[in-house]
Amino acid sequence: MNPIGELNPTQRILMGPGPSDVHPRVLRAMSAPCIGHLDPEFIGIMNEVQQLLRYVFQTSNKLTIPISATGSAGMEACMVNVLEPGDHVVIGVNGVFGMRMSDIAERCGCDVTKIEVEWGRIIEPEQVQEAVNAKATKLVGVVHAETSTGAHQPLGDISKIARDAGALFMVDTVTSLCGAEVRVDDWDIDLVYSGTQKCMSCPPGLSPISFSDRALETLRGRKSKVQSWYLDMTMVEKYWTDGDRAYHHTAPINMNYAIREALRIVHEEGLESRWARHQKNHEALAAGLSAIGIELSAQEGHRLPMLNAVKIPDGVDDAKVRGALLSEFNIEIGGGLGAGKGKVWRIGLMGESSCSHHVLHLLTALETLLAAEGVSLTKGAGVAAASEIYS
Amino acid sequence: MNPIGELNPTQRILMGPGPSDVHPRVLRAMSAPCIGHLDPEFIGIMNEVQQLLRYVFQTSNKLTIPISATGSAGMEACMVNVLEPGDHVVIGVNGVFGMRMSDIAERCGCDVTKIEVEWGRIIEPEQVQEAVNAKATKLVGVVHAETSTGAHQPLGDISKIARDAGALFMVDTVTSLCGAEVRVDDWDIDLVYSGTQKCMSCPPGLSPISFSDRALETLRGRKSKVQSWYLDMTMVEKYWTDGDRAYHHTAPINMNYAIREALRIVHEEGLESRWARHQKNHEALAAGLSAIGIELSAQEGHRLPMLNAVKIPDGVDDAKVRGALLSEFNIEIGGGLGAGKGKVWRIGLMGESSCSHHVLHLLTALETLLAAEGVSLTKGAGVAAASEIYS
Repeated sequence: MNPIGELNPTQRILMGPGPSDVHPRVLRAMSAPCIGHLDPEFIGIMNEVQQLLRYVFQTSNKLTIPISATGSAGMEACMVNVLEPGDHVVIGVNGVFGMRMSDIAERCGCDVTKIEVEWGRIIEPEQVQEAVNAKATKLVGVVHAETSTGAHQPLGDISKIARDAGALFMVDTVTSLCGAEVRVDDWDIDLVYSGTQKCMSCPPGLSPISFSDRALETLRGRKSKVQSWYLDMTMVEKYWTDGDRAYHHTAPINMNYAIREALRIVHEEGLESRWARHQKNHEALAAGLSAIGIELSAQEGHRLPMLNAVKIPDGVDDAKVRGALLSEFNIEIGGGLGAGKGKVWRIGLMGESSCSHHVLHLLTALETLLAAEGVSLTKGAGVAAASEIYS
Repeated sequence: MNPIGELNPTQRILMGPGPSDVHPRVLRAMSAPCIGHLDPEFIGIMNEVQQLLRYVFQTSNKLTIPISATGSAGMEACMVNVLEPGDHVVIGVNGVFGMRMSDIAERCGCDVTKIEVEWGRIIEPEQVQEAVNAKATKLVGVVHAETSTGAHQPLGDISKIARDAGALFMVDTVTSLCGAEVRVDDWDIDLVYSGTQKCMSCPPGLSPISFSDRALETLRGRKSKVQSWYLDMTMVEKYWTDGDRAYHHTAPINMNYAIREALRIVHEEGLESRWARHQKNHEALAAGLSAIGIELSAQEGHRLPMLNAVKIPDGVDDAKVRGALLSEFNIEIGGGLGAGKGKVWRIGLMGESSCSHHVLHLLTALETLLAAEGVSLTKGAGVAAASEIYS
């Protein structure tokens, strides 16, 4: 075997679709001594993580915990616990993550109605109404923040349609949580999941979820066992929330240290202030990009503040520019996913990465690289336009 | 919400069933700056982790990666990828983890033959032979190191029986890997999984797995989709091993820093030396315990070096003694699981925790606490007997 040297990753400027920059306090907390997962001190930490998660989800749901795996496992956990073979589900598909929801529902043996719209656009309430009118529906699922397209899905009307149809309402908040308004209780969301490496600015590794009482009743009324052992909430909830803390698996101790610290930082800033910060930096970036001729690609009026999908200018070499951003400016942005591959860049302004110096640095770097690619632009125009938002 | 203060976990002496003590180098590596999961530097780290895992598993299997979740997800990953409804599987059940294998196989819709033996005893090859003779068998699964009982399962004969029967051979090495001999290729193991928080001495959060070519052929020949999206190796293997690194989920970046460093430490020590160290500390502990009248509970001749299950002496209050070990001596040991609850203690000597000063400290602490509980013993006899092994 070749010798493998000391770990020495470069300190990047993370402006892709996640992970985002992690605060040094979070890295420090994560490197505290590992203790046992049934240690009374760790039980205390589990309780605190749940309290903090209830705050960021704006919920009083008892079952509000981090799944011991990444965001997509949170999606799977929400679905496999309430779905059974033959159930009819309605999924909004306007990007990669709606496709993923449909895929999982199919693996649960469900009858899936996909509401497919052009990538970058939102799902319209009328489409959901039509789908639930057609057949008795167990669950309606949509993506609040489509990380693949930058679309920001309104939830109020769809929630009401799902509720009136007697269906559970599931929402993907992987990218929106802690960066845009999410109100699980006020918006009658029954199943919600998120990730840690987006606007929470914690390394990836856990997936916060929350189940409403209606979701729990559905779980308790199942005819069949949950198809995943690892994600079976009838057992996981005893491990996380019961007095006994019955052993299920071993929680990722140090990742829980990390999420606790990341959530403490969110709580110190306050959700409303954090949402406003994300909005302001988004506006500055959008103004700057527009000034150098780069357009956002998601539907107008429904653009995410933390994930800015932009059209790659004609004739510009996608891989070359992203490579130069990384090697010359140390900036990571994301390429397109699925239908967006080669057509869009995804610029993240998430958590710690949502700040004016990142916005201005990226605009400067893009101006330099795009001019070299032959794009006609006025040097300095992007930074000037962004600065106006900040001043 | 109550204010939640700075994280400040006590530095414990971890002698339970895992997690074990984590080396400061691993904690330091884990707190390196988070980078993107598709960053060329992280791709390099993924390759190095795979190389190091092939070394500790003693395999050349291409698909040898850490699953982005804890050990039990590794078990589930091994099973859901090769099993389909109606398959007959044979599972050795001599503790909690054999039960868990059976449970997962049932959730895959399989016809499960459980070979049930008394907890603490090993599965005999004849029992496996009989079970595979009865019906065509897709998979034979056993637990190499039963963490709930301390039994050390021999694998050679059972591997041959499985191979001759045309069945895949699956082995749980969660607790044995890096602490006792494991040779995936020499022993013809088709599916193997482990955890990070045992003899690898890394925090929990990942589950290393390895699939043989036969296992991969079975996967590629499936009639149905893998029931778990998150654990579907047809996609996960592209993310980890293909040139393209197609996005599947976001790997837990900093946990991969941690496992890389933990595996570097294993490689520096050398597997054979590490196995010998675990054996020696086990012998010292066993001699010391015997001298104060505490007996190991697993079948003689088949006792694990890293997980010592012992009978709680008559009249001794389980919870009280374990509580005092933690509060007065800062030592964590494990209580019994399942059938062992209230009857056994589980003393881990895993990875960094397998060392003479932990053995001697625990023996001293136990002597003090058991004497207070009215157990008749000669003070100092345990430490003296253990010291003889070390001298």
